[in-house]
Amino acid sequence: MKVNGSPCRTIRVDPDDRRRILTIDQRRLPFELVEHPLLTLDDAVEAIAAMIVRGAPLIGVTAAYGLYLAALEAPADDSLRAWMRAAGERLKSARPTAVNLAWAVERVLAAIEESDDDQAERALCVAEEIEREDVESCRSIGEHGVRLIEEIAERTDGSPVNVLTHCNAGWLACVDYGTATSPIYAAHDRGVPLHVWVDETRPRNQGARLTAWELAQHGVAHTVIVDNAGGHLMQHGMVDIVLVGSDRTTASGDVCNKIGTYLKALAAHDNGIPFYAALPSSTIDWTMRDGVREIPIEERDGDEVRSVDAFVDGALRSVAVLPRETPVSNFGFDVTPARLVTGIITERGICEASETGLRGLFPEAPKR
Amino acid sequence: MKVNGSPCRTIRVDPDDRRRILTIDQRRLPFELVEHPLLTLDDAVEAIAAMIVRGAPLIGVTAAYGLYLAALEAPADDSLRAWMRAAGERLKSARPTAVNLAWAVERVLAAIEESDDDQAERALCVAEEIEREDVESCRSIGEHGVRLIEEIAERTDGSPVNVLTHCNAGWLACVDYGTATSPIYAAHDRGVPLHVWVDETRPRNQGARLTAWELAQHGVAHTVIVDNAGGHLMQHGMVDIVLVGSDRTTASGDVCNKIGTYLKALAAHDNGIPFYAALPSSTIDWTMRDGVREIPIEERDGDEVRSVDAFVDGALRSVAVLPRETPVSNFGFDVTPARLVTGIITERGICEASETGLRGLFPEAPKR
Repeated sequence: MKVNGSPCRTIRVDPDDRRRILTIDQRRLPFELVEHPLLTLDDAVEAIAAMIVRGAPLIGVTAAYGLYLAALEAPADDSLRAWMRAAGERLKSARPTAVNLAWAVERVLAAIEESDDDQAERALCVAEEIEREDVESCRSIGEHGVRLIEEIAERTDGSPVNVLTHCNAGWLACVDYGTATSPIYAAHDRGVPLHVWVDETRPRNQGARLTAWELAQHGVAHTVIVDNAGGHLMQHGMVDIVLVGSDRTTASGDVCNKIGTYLKALAAHDNGIPFYAALPSSTIDWTMRDGVREIPIEERDGDEVRSVDAFVDGALRSVAVLPRETPVSNFGFDVTPARLVTGIITERGICEASETGLRGLFPEAPKR
Repeated sequence: MKVNGSPCRTIRVDPDDRRRILTIDQRRLPFELVEHPLLTLDDAVEAIAAMIVRGAPLIGVTAAYGLYLAALEAPADDSLRAWMRAAGERLKSARPTAVNLAWAVERVLAAIEESDDDQAERALCVAEEIEREDVESCRSIGEHGVRLIEEIAERTDGSPVNVLTHCNAGWLACVDYGTATSPIYAAHDRGVPLHVWVDETRPRNQGARLTAWELAQHGVAHTVIVDNAGGHLMQHGMVDIVLVGSDRTTASGDVCNKIGTYLKALAAHDNGIPFYAALPSSTIDWTMRDGVREIPIEERDGDEVRSVDAFVDGALRSVAVLPRETPVSNFGFDVTPARLVTGIITERGICEASETGLRGLFPEAPKR
């Protein structure tokens, strides 16, 4: 997607020095756009652990490149395999709950161990493959999802289609396009007039800080709202469609996404507004049927609620909005039951949020 | 209610100097408890305009005392009536949308103009009367509402009753007890074990800053959550009842309260959890039937979303969480339709959220 008018991705090999991986320091957005180069395995581990990069797909790609950097640093002796395995463990432990991260690490290690080629070249090749697949998957989600927006535009006689989104399921979480944002960018690029309501997304404000920045850079009209506002907007006909991402999806179509998504789904349902989750099929857990009961919900540090990142005297700082002794609870995600989800947009097309719908698109998926 | 173990009210005449009115500077809570004395009409106008005091009932009482202070300063000549009318206008324009403020001002002015007594004494007498009425109304709401909590406690075998509340409908918004909090304090004082989930309530964080502080001072167990979290808690049986306030209530039982209340009502309804609004009958607008269509919703300054009050280097400051150029929308309230409201708790008792229910308790109310 565009940044300052030029195409940009969240991660890439430095074209001037193939031993450097270029990322964006997402902690400093939207106040500052700072390129963050990774030169070593340590850099990659730190980028993941410190949330310089975030978003499941991007973490996976970063870990894959991290193994490439590890291979460049590897000793020229028999201990190479152990060295790479140790590097993989360090990367995996940087964000222990990120399923995607472990998957990417194992994929690169397996490819290296099966091959007699140069280890670094092989790791680079697989990292680039994972990156390409993510871009293609996100692009396809946009191609399918855009027709939902186009259909609404056909009925609105030129007035902008109002989309509401929650958190950042944008290109900053992936490599390019994003998931929930991909149909939005596709519609914008085709000239469909649209406007996006961006939920702030407390406690980490990923909507206000990342999604709004993405949309502004690409030239998409948008407005930031507090998480409390969406219901009022929907009651007053100011939202035409809700598009969100998913961190984990059950075979039955329940969607686990950033905390607060369920409340927006309820409001959409109460006001007859379509609510779609856009997700790559890699987030579908084919073993699960009841998301509310089965999906474990991460409880995070209460300091995320007690403090906020703010721009103070020219510098980005974490500042206290509540005294340290205030009791706080901080669940990271919630589950939206399939009955509230109008449909699911995947890289293969759009389906009903049900096991029949999902298995129709993915007949090869493992049976329970 | 208690502060540091001693009974406290939001406003009172200084017992050592009857020419001083003592308030709390609510802008500095929960970081600092600072008494804020009002000595002149100017002080009262500023306290209301700068939100040193806030909450419709407290603003009304403060304005009444403001007229008392104005009378103390009045010139000893024939221009007294004009002087007091001008003072009333200044107080009313300090928060132009606060209906309660205008009502309190008119009540004091009418009492002064009808009487031959000393003007200041008369104003003081009416201000104290308005204050007493508010305390009594809030106390009664607690007396009626507490049995909802007691009924749940009878079924829970000693485990705490979990109440969820939004914004600050607490004693800080009134003089004592509060509205939504009054049944909570009554239950606590009777020894009913309970725990309160406190919605942060973006953008101004009145829940996190004021409600949590109130509850902590009075010794009520509580936990602050982001506004996104309530749905997840309700899905998992962690909420037994939702109690909120109301800024304006239609004759049909629609409830206009702080933005985000509607989303919590939807989640309560979806999970079979009782949702009650606690309100003095003075908030009922007997001329309205359709809250979503008829109640005008205030749009406030976007800087409330772009910035937040934080404690930085030992001082309370407003700091930027978003760049100034970020487009923002900031609706202050939303309307929860009566169909989602289990019941309404008033100073006369609890009723169904319907015209039949409300008119049953208030048969003398004006017909449409």
